[in-house]
Amino acid sequence: MTTVSLELEEIFNLAKKTLLANGCDDETATILGNLIKNAERDGSLSHGLFRLPSYVIGLKGGKINGKGNPEISKLTPCVIKIDGKNCLAPVVLNRGIPELVKAAKENGVAVLAITNSHHMAAMWPETEAIAEQGLVAFACTSYKPAVAPAGSIKPLFGTNPISFAWPRKNNTPVVYDMATASMAMGEVQVAKREGHTVPLGTGLTKEGKETTNPAEIADGGVLLPFGGYKGSAIGMMVELLAGALVGDNFSYETEEKDNNDGSPPSGGEFILAISPDKLSNTDWEKHASEFFDKMKSMGNVRLPGERRHKNRLNTGPRQINEELINKIKSLS
Amino acid sequence: MTTVSLELEEIFNLAKKTLLANGCDDETATILGNLIKNAERDGSLSHGLFRLPSYVIGLKGGKINGKGNPEISKLTPCVIKIDGKNCLAPVVLNRGIPELVKAAKENGVAVLAITNSHHMAAMWPETEAIAEQGLVAFACTSYKPAVAPAGSIKPLFGTNPISFAWPRKNNTPVVYDMATASMAMGEVQVAKREGHTVPLGTGLTKEGKETTNPAEIADGGVLLPFGGYKGSAIGMMVELLAGALVGDNFSYETEEKDNNDGSPPSGGEFILAISPDKLSNTDWEKHASEFFDKMKSMGNVRLPGERRHKNRLNTGPRQINEELINKIKSLS
Repeated sequence: MTTVSLELEEIFNLAKKTLLANGCDDETATILGNLIKNAERDGSLSHGLFRLPSYVIGLKGGKINGKGNPEISKLTPCVIKIDGKNCLAPVVLNRGIPELVKAAKENGVAVLAITNSHHMAAMWPETEAIAEQGLVAFACTSYKPAVAPAGSIKPLFGTNPISFAWPRKNNTPVVYDMATASMAMGEVQVAKREGHTVPLGTGLTKEGKETTNPAEIADGGVLLPFGGYKGSAIGMMVELLAGALVGDNFSYETEEKDNNDGSPPSGGEFILAISPDKLSNTDWEKHASEFFDKMKSMGNVRLPGERRHKNRLNTGPRQINEELINKIKSLS
Repeated sequence: MTTVSLELEEIFNLAKKTLLANGCDDETATILGNLIKNAERDGSLSHGLFRLPSYVIGLKGGKINGKGNPEISKLTPCVIKIDGKNCLAPVVLNRGIPELVKAAKENGVAVLAITNSHHMAAMWPETEAIAEQGLVAFACTSYKPAVAPAGSIKPLFGTNPISFAWPRKNNTPVVYDMATASMAMGEVQVAKREGHTVPLGTGLTKEGKETTNPAEIADGGVLLPFGGYKGSAIGMMVELLAGALVGDNFSYETEEKDNNDGSPPSGGEFILAISPDKLSNTDWEKHASEFFDKMKSMGNVRLPGERRHKNRLNTGPRQINEELINKIKSLS
C-alpha cells in the first residue's frame, strides 16, 4: 500500500474542505473534520478518512442534511431528546452532550435519546466527552442487520456497538467501544484476503453451519454475536435501547427504509450519563484508581482505550492510503 | 438423585421456617421464602433452596443481619441510595424498588445505589419487578474474584452478573440474567464429574494455558470472561458500577474483608430504571412487540427469560433433592 504523509491539521483541512464542497455548512464540516482527524490521530482508522466518501454519498443524494438544525427538547429534568433532523450524529451530539452533562451533574443521572440522526462514526468520541466532564457514560446504537441472533442463521441485529467510559482525574478516561458482533465483516474480509482462519463462533456459512473459513462467512454467510447467546442478549438490548426506547428504528426497519446507498442511514442512539459525585459518597476516583492499578498489575492486562490514548500522544503526521486520498480529493 | 415432591407453598414454608429459626424476623423470612419459592418455581435451581444453607451460615455467624432495617436516602429526585445495614439483598430491594420505580416514572430515569447488602440470589427478581411496572431495568453486582481479566491468568473479577428486563403489556418481561464469566464454576465442576469437555475460552489451567478439560480449570485454574476481551470489558464495567460508583467494594476488596465462610459477603449493587413512556413518544410497546415477533420468526430463537416463564406456568409440586431437604431440615 502506497501512503501519503499528512499532518493532523492537513487531515482536518482535507475532510472539512470535502464536506464543505458537498453541501455541509461550516459547523457540520468543522465538527466532522475534527472527528475524522481525531480518529486518524487515535489510530481508529476504520472511522477516519475511510468513512468520508460514504458521508459524501449521503450528502450529495440529499439523504443527509449537512446544514440542518437538530431540535432539542428537555422532556424531564433528566431526559433530553433530540430530533436529529437528518444531520450527521456528531453534529447532533455536539448540541446534545452539553445538555446531557448539565442534567446528569444536577440530577445524578440523565439520558439523551436521539432520533433521525446518521451515525457511522465510532462512539468513543461521545462517551469520552462525557467522561471528561467527570461522569460515567454509556452509549449504544444499531444499524442494519448483519448479525444472526443466537439460534438463527439469518441476520437481524446490526453490529450494534456499545461504548462505556469511566472518568479519571488528570488522565484519559477508561473507555471501551466495541461491536456486539464477534467481529466486523471488514475484518472477516481481511482474513479471507490474507488466507487466515477466524475463530469458531465468528459466523456461519450460508447453510447455517459453523465455520472457521472467513470466505464462507463473507460470501453469503452471516456474522454471529460475540460470546454466543450472552452476546446475543446484549445485541438484543441494543436494538431495544436505540430503537423502541428512544423512539427510532430497529436495524431491520432501518434497512427497509434506507435507500441503501452505502451512506449512513437514519437511526437512533441511546446515551446515559451518571455522576459518581452524586452517587458514591466516597473518594470514588482514588477507589477506582486503585482498582485500575490492581488490574494492570495482573499480567498482560490492558485497560480498554489505552492503545488509542497512546497513539494520541503522537502529534506527528500520519501515513494515509494514497488511493483513499486520491478518491477523497476527487470529491471536491 | 433421590427427590422429594414439594408443593410451592411447602417450599415457601420450609424456607421461611428455617430462616425464622436462624435469627430472621418475619419480614426477612417472608421475603427470602418467596424468593426461594419463586426460584424453584421458575427452575432457577441454583438460586433456590440450594442457597438456603449458605444464608443460614451468615445469619448464625452474625455476618448477615436478619432483623435489620435498611436505610433509604433520596440523594436527588432520581438517585435513591440504600445502606443495606447488612441485610440480605432481597430485603433491601423490597424497600428500594418501589422508590426507584416512583422516581423513574416521575423523571424518566432513576438509579438505585445499594451498599452493605448481601446478594447471593439471581437478579431477575429485581429487574422483572421493575419491568412489571412498565419500566426498562438494568442491574449488576460483583462478588469475589473468580474470573481472570483478558490478558491475565489470575482471578480479579467476580462472575459479575448483569440483568436486563424489557416490559411488555399483558405478558412477562423479556429478561436476561447472566454471569459475565464464560460459565459458572459449578457448571465446570459438573462437566468434570460427568467427563465432558468445555468450550475453549471457558477457562485456563493453573499454568495459564487454554484448555477444554474442565478438571484443569476447576483444580487451581481460573474462569475466563465470556466472549474474550469484550466480555472482560463488561466484567470490568460491572466492577466499576457496583463498586466505586455506588460506593462499595470491588470483588478483590470483598474477598479481603469477608470472613469467607461460604455465606454471601457484604457488597454493592447498581440498578437503573428508565421509562419508555417518558422517552419514546411512540407506541413503544407495539413497536417492541413487532421486533420480538420478528426475532421469534427467525428460526430456533428463544427470547431471554422464556424458559423460566414457561416453567412458571406449572403450579404443581417440584421435585427437590432429598439430601438438600434433609440438610435444610437439620437447620431448624
